[in-house]
Amino acid sequence: MASLIIRGGTVVNHDHSRLADVLIDGETIVALGPAIDAPSGAAIIDAGGCYVMPGGIDPHTHLELKFMGTVSSDDFEWGTKAALAGGTTMIVDFCIPDPGQSMLAAYQDWRRKSEKYNSFARCAQLGAMPLVHAENGDVVARMQEAVLGRGVTGPEGHAYSRPPEVEGEATNRAIMIADMTGAPLYVVHTSCRESHEAIARARANGKRVYGEPLIQHLLLDATEYENSSWNHAARRVMSPPFRAKAHQDSLWAGLQSGSLQVVATDHCAFTTEQKRLGIDDFRKIPNGTGGLEDRMPLLWTAAVNTGRLTKEEFVAVTSSNIARILNIYPKKGRLAAGSDADIVVWDPAASKTISANSQLSRIDYNVFEGYACTGAPVVTLSRGNIAWAMGELRAEKGDGRYVERPPFSPVHVANSTWKQQSAPRAVRRADVTP
Amino acid sequence: MASLIIRGGTVVNHDHSRLADVLIDGETIVALGPAIDAPSGAAIIDAGGCYVMPGGIDPHTHLELKFMGTVSSDDFEWGTKAALAGGTTMIVDFCIPDPGQSMLAAYQDWRRKSEKYNSFARCAQLGAMPLVHAENGDVVARMQEAVLGRGVTGPEGHAYSRPPEVEGEATNRAIMIADMTGAPLYVVHTSCRESHEAIARARANGKRVYGEPLIQHLLLDATEYENSSWNHAARRVMSPPFRAKAHQDSLWAGLQSGSLQVVATDHCAFTTEQKRLGIDDFRKIPNGTGGLEDRMPLLWTAAVNTGRLTKEEFVAVTSSNIARILNIYPKKGRLAAGSDADIVVWDPAASKTISANSQLSRIDYNVFEGYACTGAPVVTLSRGNIAWAMGELRAEKGDGRYVERPPFSPVHVANSTWKQQSAPRAVRRADVTP
Amino acid sequence: MASLIIRGGTVVNHDHSRLADVLIDGETIVALGPAIDAPSGAAIIDAGGCYVMPGGIDPHTHLELKFMGTVSSDDFEWGTKAALAGGTTMIVDFCIPDPGQSMLAAYQDWRRKSEKYNSFARCAQLGAMPLVHAENGDVVARMQEAVLGRGVTGPEGHAYSRPPEVEGEATNRAIMIADMTGAPLYVVHTSCRESHEAIARARANGKRVYGEPLIQHLLLDATEYENSSWNHAARRVMSPPFRAKAHQDSLWAGLQSGSLQVVATDHCAFTTEQKRLGIDDFRKIPNGTGGLEDRMPLLWTAAVNTGRLTKEEFVAVTSSNIARILNIYPKKGRLAAGSDADIVVWDPAASKTISANSQLSRIDYNVFEGYACTGAPVVTLSRGNIAWAMGELRAEKGDGRYVERPPFSPVHVANSTWKQQSAPRAVRRADVTP
Amino acid sequence: MASLIIRGGTVVNHDHSRLADVLIDGETIVALGPAIDAPSGAAIIDAGGCYVMPGGIDPHTHLELKFMGTVSSDDFEWGTKAALAGGTTMIVDFCIPDPGQSMLAAYQDWRRKSEKYNSFARCAQLGAMPLVHAENGDVVARMQEAVLGRGVTGPEGHAYSRPPEVEGEATNRAIMIADMTGAPLYVVHTSCRESHEAIARARANGKRVYGEPLIQHLLLDATEYENSSWNHAARRVMSPPFRAKAHQDSLWAGLQSGSLQVVATDHCAFTTEQKRLGIDDFRKIPNGTGGLEDRMPLLWTAAVNTGRLTKEEFVAVTSSNIARILNIYPKKGRLAAGSDADIVVWDPAASKTISANSQLSRIDYNVFEGYACTGAPVVTLSRGNIAWAMGELRAEKGDGRYVERPPFSPVHVANSTWKQQSAPRAVRRADVTP
Repeated sequence: MASLIIRGGTVVNHDHSRLADVLIDGETIVALGPAIDAPSGAAIIDAGGCYVMPGGIDPHTHLELKFMGTVSSDDFEWGTKAALAGGTTMIVDFCIPDPGQSMLAAYQDWRRKSEKYNSFARCAQLGAMPLVHAENGDVVARMQEAVLGRGVTGPEGHAYSRPPEVEGEATNRAIMIADMTGAPLYVVHTSCRESHEAIARARANGKRVYGEPLIQHLLLDATEYENSSWNHAARRVMSPPFRAKAHQDSLWAGLQSGSLQVVATDHCAFTTEQKRLGIDDFRKIPNGTGGLEDRMPLLWTAAVNTGRLTKEEFVAVTSSNIARILNIYPKKGRLAAGSDADIVVWDPAASKTISANSQLSRIDYNVFEGYACTGAPVVTLSRGNIAWAMGELRAEKGDGRYVERPPFSPVHVANSTWKQQSAPRAVRRADVTP
Repeated sequence: MASLIIRGGTVVNHDHSRLADVLIDGETIVALGPAIDAPSGAAIIDAGGCYVMPGGIDPHTHLELKFMGTVSSDDFEWGTKAALAGGTTMIVDFCIPDPGQSMLAAYQDWRRKSEKYNSFARCAQLGAMPLVHAENGDVVARMQEAVLGRGVTGPEGHAYSRPPEVEGEATNRAIMIADMTGAPLYVVHTSCRESHEAIARARANGKRVYGEPLIQHLLLDATEYENSSWNHAARRVMSPPFRAKAHQDSLWAGLQSGSLQVVATDHCAFTTEQKRLGIDDFRKIPNGTGGLEDRMPLLWTAAVNTGRLTKEEFVAVTSSNIARILNIYPKKGRLAAGSDADIVVWDPAASKTISANSQLSRIDYNVFEGYACTGAPVVTLSRGNIAWAMGELRAEKGDGRYVERPPFSPVHVANSTWKQQSAPRAVRRADVTP
Repeated sequence: MASLIIRGGTVVNHDHSRLADVLIDGETIVALGPAIDAPSGAAIIDAGGCYVMPGGIDPHTHLELKFMGTVSSDDFEWGTKAALAGGTTMIVDFCIPDPGQSMLAAYQDWRRKSEKYNSFARCAQLGAMPLVHAENGDVVARMQEAVLGRGVTGPEGHAYSRPPEVEGEATNRAIMIADMTGAPLYVVHTSCRESHEAIARARANGKRVYGEPLIQHLLLDATEYENSSWNHAARRVMSPPFRAKAHQDSLWAGLQSGSLQVVATDHCAFTTEQKRLGIDDFRKIPNGTGGLEDRMPLLWTAAVNTGRLTKEEFVAVTSSNIARILNIYPKKGRLAAGSDADIVVWDPAASKTISANSQLSRIDYNVFEGYACTGAPVVTLSRGNIAWAMGELRAEKGDGRYVERPPFSPVHVANSTWKQQSAPRAVRRADVTP
Repeated sequence: MASLIIRGGTVVNHDHSRLADVLIDGETIVALGPAIDAPSGAAIIDAGGCYVMPGGIDPHTHLELKFMGTVSSDDFEWGTKAALAGGTTMIVDFCIPDPGQSMLAAYQDWRRKSEKYNSFARCAQLGAMPLVHAENGDVVARMQEAVLGRGVTGPEGHAYSRPPEVEGEATNRAIMIADMTGAPLYVVHTSCRESHEAIARARANGKRVYGEPLIQHLLLDATEYENSSWNHAARRVMSPPFRAKAHQDSLWAGLQSGSLQVVATDHCAFTTEQKRLGIDDFRKIPNGTGGLEDRMPLLWTAAVNTGRLTKEEFVAVTSSNIARILNIYPKKGRLAAGSDADIVVWDPAASKTISANSQLSRIDYNVFEGYACTGAPVVTLSRGNIAWAMGELRAEKGDGRYVERPPFSPVHVANSTWKQQSAPRAVRRADVTP
């Protein structure tokens, strides 16, 4: 396989940046340093003025998901193509055991399992990282009834019936249950102050808990559900719903302080037509929004350009942290000799206005429509191949590969050791026989 | 009925103290002030050098409770006599729907009900104050299995299987569920930092939540379960168990700051013989300890004599606060014209060493054995009658009366109004018909 | 002096409400109960449908204050008349040692004193309650220079140069210094989350610290300083400045949970003409706003009508709590036999729109202009005299009396006892002689 | 210069570990990977069964410091030799402007400077990282007088006069002042919950603040000052003093959660003879303890062996984090091609009992005497040279080099950008001319 060299860019890793060339042989980075000699015949990408970063990893997507009586519109082909156009080179798509279940049944099932107390304990044994969607399903079901009982059937009812308290409580509970087993915990789509505080509180007590805000919750808020257009509001229906603006400060501070670690999308794209399944009852609106294609430019604009995060932290929350949590680092999530050549060449001066008209995603709208980004990918490499360049998609269906995730990350091992220290011990006694 | 006058004491109410005489006619206080003229024939109690305070209310007792295959040893007669000897003139005993249930079944039942989301919502409608025993029963059951699996069968296993996290989580959850219905909440036997913090957090967000530490948790700690005598340890088995000493600082600070409001006992006395039902398995040790007779002198010693609480705050946490929460104030919980003459004349210089040998309670030990108190009742009046005086019990079986508790306390009414403010409202839309 | 009876109202105290008549003889309440027999010749006030409450106490006013080169416009005569019209019967006006000092000099002076560590320690000895205006004056001075350096000279610069952090830090520091001496602490005009959290944190550690939000900070926010009219903005200049709206949630929750105890006004009224002294430099705008006349109806509307506070809590935060903190309770702050007859008869159905046109205060504007209140006084009694009734002022200049405040409140005494417990004790050693 | 290869070990960096050889040429690592071909003539270190980690960096030492009338006993030669024996290859020694100042004068000076508000603002301009020793010196001085006034002259008086509140307050204040200038902040020797909470609170609000617990505070507690030997107690006198044991939980959790980042020693060694300068007055006991030689084995034992920290986190808190904060990463703090060859070969099975008898440090005692460590260095390389191996010191005086620290770390740049976003802006107004 031919060699490729990325010349003259600033290589940005989660812990350091420097001017360096990146030499790729086949699927792998083989050298990284200043003024590398290119092998004869090597293709050259000029990255002058650009940042060269690990490709984004979106740890939370639902492509072609059978859900709520329909199938999410971005299939694996077009979903991953959209990802590449946005600088994301790896996704973690969710395997849902039985997609025929109603949302409520799924909740109850999770609830039942957590009560049976098997899943977390089993994760602890297997060295797996348990994930939770944290909302108290019983309370949500009651709230839905109450909201409908007041005659609220539109998308705003979705938000009314899933207040932040319901998420905060379930996060707090999942943390306790995981902790009792000695397992670490990863909380998906942390959307509100209450949930973030439960995570931060656990971490402040030494527990290994991770939280994942979505780019949607960082940028969009609950006023979207009061839009006078049903379509507009319904397109934003996802769980947890968008929150009052004040919650965003909490999420941003979590990313800055390290109490939240990953920015994802929960990409699950339903068309307007699909959304209208819930025209009479907000409970039937397919839950999900897009974002896979736009996560990286949106976050760069809102985080790096404003000074909220450094560019190194941008790499951390879009790629390296989740690679470490998934125990696939530094194969993924770092630019270094020996790592997979999943790379995005990022032009911090490039500007792009997000629009459904120009997206690869297969839905007819974009919840970020009109959002002006500064900073965007110019070339995306997937395992050494130019998958997307200068607006042109080059990846082919089937180019992707499954990535194995080894169990027993260092955090797991430490946790087990720690639990062992405080294991119950019997007290010897004189008066135990009657 | 004859008149009675208490002369020359300092009347202590929760908000103020002053030198005053107290005139009682029948069951009721009719006047309170300096140098009251006694009606001819009035009996006189000399309270010089003493504090005259509202009789204690213990809002959490289990007299003659059928529980875990046996019956708690203090029946209503002797339990209330013990109470009077300690300056407590009213108790709230718990009606347990089906005492035949195992502890676990009771938990599950509560859990099930809370999930069905009926009890709190119904309380909100009725203007009743919901109470919770907050421990995550599912996790406790798993922990019990795990602890037994490690060969720990003694009373220390009781504490191992009910760590503070399990209580903190359940408290946090109960608060959220109550809040969703608009009901206030009263958390019984708040024993640990985690639970107190959940309550304080809720209050810091404007929610109406109350917490009740027990005198046992304020003074005794988990090292009791490591005692080399099985009997010693088993006698201290109650739920929640005693905690590591550091938790006590949190509870005391809660009483000082007002984030915890009531000191109770959860008095549920089982003899050593009854405790030995669990000789082979800590799960079978009847749960419960005594304290009804000793709560007031113990708390005075540990709180007022040290400067942790003022004497007014002592009245608040032993009597007035719970009277207000129960909506029976100022009939109970205050010394004022028109209030019931439930009164304790308190000698701050009296000393008493607690011992099973000298107690009225019908069990063969006292978990506070040897604790030296300074400050004790000299006379206890129940509805105008001298029920206990100078070490002599005068109350007769049947003297007590049931106290009605009106629903819809001011806090309830305010909460409903507040909830009303944020009720769901439908958004009008143009595009709702397809 | 003649008798007066208030008939048929609901008497509201901080801990309880009931239907009762109030009989007044001279300056004092002599009886309180249902269906009291009026002495012959007694004047009668019909309070049917009304609440009868302790007159408001505003613990923080500056009448005819020489400050920043001018004198506040409400003198003692008109300030107290305005107070009576609004149901407030007692004020605590601030004695400022040297009114000739610049604001900065005053800060530095306070700072110097606190550093010399004398004032708080002296308060502890005297049994006095230290009060602090908590803003870090050094930082404010630097911020003012920085803000002016950017060309911001208008009232918005006042807010820019006094961010919440500056108040939060000073509150935290004052608490620590007071705590080291064993003195309790009262923090005036707590305006922001940071300061409230410092107070709540201290209380959560068992310290006796009190916080006083102003009605202005509860209802008005920092957007007022961006008003396109200089006059509008300058009239709202006070220290601390109004805050971003999110801070109000924190203050309200503090009142609900009891971590903040008193609502005051810091009434210090300057006319628009006086405000224009700072037309070129926001530092010269006399600091102060009004509120004395409007505090009670505004708070009732925003707190009781919404369900945030009960009517009993309204009495607590406008009257009883500060009376207890000042150690003048129940002479003030309670309706009971023996208390001063400072009473407001409150019609919860009365409506009033606040306007400078109809106010007694001597300034030409009202920062609450146009605010619609429901709930207002109909009669205000000061020491038994009808001082204001049905819109008509009856009090005369000189009617007021100075109120003595005894030192050594119960909280003081408890604090000293507590400090004594943890006093340093020398360790005995063998090797101290060389 | 000759080549050197470290074979067969597990290379541990802060973000990942793997089996790899490390090839060194001169002072620099030139390759890192599995089964590297050694150049002919290369020396070989067999690291089988060992971890190969970045050399420790101790960011806080005081070698040959003139202080309190004497000079700390470890000079640069012996201090750094001791460091090498313990696996530490770089120290940051403190330049104290005028060592003739009394401790109090130094505090006052710092205080004065911070009030003048120059140092932090200047740091912000220069791109420097400000450091603070956070204790409220004025309060300490008062407390010292109070403690002496009670006849406490021994080392226990040192602890009595510097309670945690005094440190927590100063930390909180320094954070606010730094934040106002836009500078990040590094808090040295964070010893208590209060100080850690101030840091964590700031971070939870998105501020860039770092905290440095010392190995002493992590392992030793205030009971040391109650030792019956004056010498024992005085040897432990440092500022801040050791704290009650409960504070250690907070510090450990800070390292686990990332709210504290660095473990240092504040190594400042005074002999017993020097300590006895304060025999009559604890204020004259030279402040300082040792630890430079023992930090790494002690921390490994208490953190990694127990499961509190992973071995990667051990590298983070002993080396990589401070290297990043000092902006010298990855030259220091990482094992990678291009980095300085500062390396410790660590045998996790090696055991060592700490004793003054066997230490290189020039003092006659060790505050960790008798502490049994498992895990210790076998070889320490400094810039490619074997400086210490198998118990034998090979470094020579003068081998060390000064390390330049470039200003304007990424965090600095982001902070400035962020501050720029919220800079004051003037409001345009119509009525500004009279």
